Amino acid sequence: MGAVGRNRGSRRRGRQQTAEAVQHLERKIPYYDLLAEDAIDLIEEHADRILAEVGIEIRGDEEAIGLFRDAGATVDGERLHFDPGLVGDIVTRSTPREFVQHARDPKRSVTIGGDHTVFAPGYGMPFVRDLDGGRRYGSMEDLERLVKINQTLEWTHHSSLVICEPTDVPVNKRHLDMVAAHLQYSTKPLLGAVTAPERAEDSIEMVRIVFGPEFVDGNCVIMGNINVNSPLVFDGQVTRVMRIYAAANQGVVVCPFILGGAMGPVTPPGAIAQAHAEAMVGVALTQLVRPGAPVVYGNFLTTMSLRSGAPTFGTPEAGLAYFAVGQLARRLGVPVRCGGSFTSSKLPDAQSAQESADSLLTALMSGTNFVLHAAGWLEGGLVMDYEKLVLDNDRLGMMHVLLRGLNLDDNAFALDGFREVGPGNHFLGSAHTLANYESAYYEAKFGDSASWEQWREEGELDARQRANADWKARLTDYQQPHLPPDVEEALTGFVAGRKEAVPDAWY
Amino acid sequence: MGAVGRNRGSRRRGRQQTAEAVQHLERKIPYYDLLAEDAIDLIEEHADRILAEVGIEIRGDEEAIGLFRDAGATVDGERLHFDPGLVGDIVTRSTPREFVQHARDPKRSVTIGGDHTVFAPGYGMPFVRDLDGGRRYGSMEDLERLVKINQTLEWTHHSSLVICEPTDVPVNKRHLDMVAAHLQYSTKPLLGAVTAPERAEDSIEMVRIVFGPEFVDGNCVIMGNINVNSPLVFDGQVTRVMRIYAAANQGVVVCPFILGGAMGPVTPPGAIAQAHAEAMVGVALTQLVRPGAPVVYGNFLTTMSLRSGAPTFGTPEAGLAYFAVGQLARRLGVPVRCGGSFTSSKLPDAQSAQESADSLLTALMSGTNFVLHAAGWLEGGLVMDYEKLVLDNDRLGMMHVLLRGLNLDDNAFALDGFREVGPGNHFLGSAHTLANYESAYYEAKFGDSASWEQWREEGELDARQRANADWKARLTDYQQPHLPPDVEEALTGFVAGRKEAVPDAWY
Repeated sequence: MGAVGRNRGSRRRGRQQTAEAVQHLERKIPYYDLLAEDAIDLIEEHADRILAEVGIEIRGDEEAIGLFRDAGATVDGERLHFDPGLVGDIVTRSTPREFVQHARDPKRSVTIGGDHTVFAPGYGMPFVRDLDGGRRYGSMEDLERLVKINQTLEWTHHSSLVICEPTDVPVNKRHLDMVAAHLQYSTKPLLGAVTAPERAEDSIEMVRIVFGPEFVDGNCVIMGNINVNSPLVFDGQVTRVMRIYAAANQGVVVCPFILGGAMGPVTPPGAIAQAHAEAMVGVALTQLVRPGAPVVYGNFLTTMSLRSGAPTFGTPEAGLAYFAVGQLARRLGVPVRCGGSFTSSKLPDAQSAQESADSLLTALMSGTNFVLHAAGWLEGGLVMDYEKLVLDNDRLGMMHVLLRGLNLDDNAFALDGFREVGPGNHFLGSAHTLANYESAYYEAKFGDSASWEQWREEGELDARQRANADWKARLTDYQQPHLPPDVEEALTGFVAGRKEAVPDAWY
Repeated sequence: MGAVGRNRGSRRRGRQQTAEAVQHLERKIPYYDLLAEDAIDLIEEHADRILAEVGIEIRGDEEAIGLFRDAGATVDGERLHFDPGLVGDIVTRSTPREFVQHARDPKRSVTIGGDHTVFAPGYGMPFVRDLDGGRRYGSMEDLERLVKINQTLEWTHHSSLVICEPTDVPVNKRHLDMVAAHLQYSTKPLLGAVTAPERAEDSIEMVRIVFGPEFVDGNCVIMGNINVNSPLVFDGQVTRVMRIYAAANQGVVVCPFILGGAMGPVTPPGAIAQAHAEAMVGVALTQLVRPGAPVVYGNFLTTMSLRSGAPTFGTPEAGLAYFAVGQLARRLGVPVRCGGSFTSSKLPDAQSAQESADSLLTALMSGTNFVLHAAGWLEGGLVMDYEKLVLDNDRLGMMHVLLRGLNLDDNAFALDGFREVGPGNHFLGSAHTLANYESAYYEAKFGDSASWEQWREEGELDARQRANADWKARLTDYQQPHLPPDVEEALTGFVAGRKEAVPDAWY
């Protein structure tokens, strides 16, 4: 009997080619179903009622509104109402159940959706922190270092984009330097800019230079991660960016951004129904632009402190919501982004590790396919922490083992080992142990299991201090991957040309 | 529609009365089933083959061997072989599916088994640590302080026993002072001594003083937690202790203690089958002594560092094993002890929190009923940490919320809230938020969600430093619960008498 998998009987629809990626994480363990089918029905029903009775607004994008009108929505100015089932039908008609996002090193290409899980480091942090330099604004130098460190990480599959904000680069030109840095310093797949339509266009143009325009038209090589202006609003800038990615057959991650009590109800079921409604509308828009375009049903749903109104992470209510979100996405048959190594802690301390562990594990049990912010996130997303980046990477390795499940073959049951060892003796030197110990367990990098005496001799370092040495060693060992000189020249030329074309802007 | 529960259709067998405990944690969410039914069959089959082909040894307890001989085992000296199914049949014939462990404050009584979860703090640590005093041998003063702190914890249901080793008390008299301290300073249910048969007898005699002998004969008020001498050995001292507890109708927690690669195979499925075999034999022994005696199918199965051979905790292989153990125990229909807030870290740092989070959450998903070591455990069980005790307590609170699941009623779906707020506006001041925010979310005690600026003003404290202030405040606020003077006098008199009767021994 081989590896154990359940709940695998999924409909196949619009599936693109499967990546032969060495970094692949394909789930072999069952999903956790918190809710019975009738409870999922109830959430879907409430999402449909929100869309029918309250509606959503698309503010300042007539073309997007027109697409929905043509598809059957009732339009009243910028407010759209949808008959129950309408949005879900658009989604299920053409959305790929899974797709490949190609990397410039084909071995690093990833499959997003189905039973696959993809980990990407944090995104969008204006600050960075490390044990030596403390907390400071992110710079282009930080971004380059972080992209390089991430390239060396064994357990992240993706390069993200704004691994920190390069605040020393003009706002309207950051995307050029960031996309170029990811393409030059990393071979993992990347995200593209979403902060303005022309920046999205630039991002796609840059991957066309590297992958070739024909390849890009036929394959997903870049994705834009967009936040819904929750509750129930899509800003026209956002829908335009979505339309640009979808029209180019590139990926869109649609992410309702809901802090319960602020951008949604304080009671989790209402926030879950709202997130479902918003995500479905976003996914549907991409399918109206280009049926079959790669898209991810996203979710960023968390709680807040009832004392201060500050966002809180890794909370049990968020975990319960993740469980439901996974079930909703699976029933819809679309790839899902959910969870991350989230925390509101200011340091990579016990609070940080506990919140990150809970938010990631619940999301993985629920079946998340794409985990943005899987490593490095600190302080509610304000800080990319160098030490936490590598600490989280280590835990992602553990999660690879967990998701791969148990292999119940004869060797694993070790009956010969029991016969050899017998009652009361040790397995340490047994033939079965010697034959298996090298591959038996994940060897944690930061899980110090040494004796207290040895740990004391080595300087009484906590996990954070051990991680400090690790990311530095990675930077020292980092080797820049080969990019053909003509491609590099074309890329650099494009960036220079676009930078010259417009004056710097800092807002 | 109310709270959502599944997998609840359990056979009822030998169920004792249900506690009306205010501290109750009754699970409302489904169990996580890692394995398909045929995979569980396969593990059971291998456990049966271990018992039939290799057998187990009971070393130096003719009476226990005789009980198994009479029940059908094949006895060859101290080695016992069991036909497939024999041990399981003894277990399922009379083991209570759940039972109440009574506390001296009836509101603190707990139900062990079924859909109930009971959290107990750490047990057996020779050392203690706190931020002020560092790492040192535990003392009776520490034990008393820790019992008092635990009495104030909102989310532990149980008092454990050796919350630290009082190393300043003679080894042969520690149990007297420990049991007395728990009975005097705590109203939560407790464990009893297991290190020698006469200490088990003393423990039971002491609860007879407090609860009355008739009550004790009819009800479980104390439990002995015993470790199997894995692999496949029960020491006669251990079986004698088990027989004493079972004969007195008191609880036994049977705990195979397996570090994969040392006391069992390095491949998890073999270790799981072994643990199942050992736990079943232990449970069966109690049922042969006294059918219907309260007993818990325990498990302490973890991994080791392949570099050093040191035990490792919170690992993914241990998590997978917990999932399987929960399913095995549930099929057998017995209460299960599994998991804890385990770590090999020397400090309550990021490593500690991550390992503890993973080991506890996987155990809870798997359906553990009794979690020993749920709070305070550090350094592979060598250290009880004051700060971690309260940090873990906070996370236990979160786990209460998680296990209680989502309440999918109309209020929770907040349709009126959506109608009131509409697209693009905030829920912060809405009627729905005002009506619900006070009870909406668990408010973490150590999850600092303040802004970085505020956190800096407050001294840049990490989670451990914040926890330091918390346990001190608990000690200050602690109030000793009332124990009738005649009972206290009888208890003290018993301790004094037993101490005088024998000379001190330090081994």
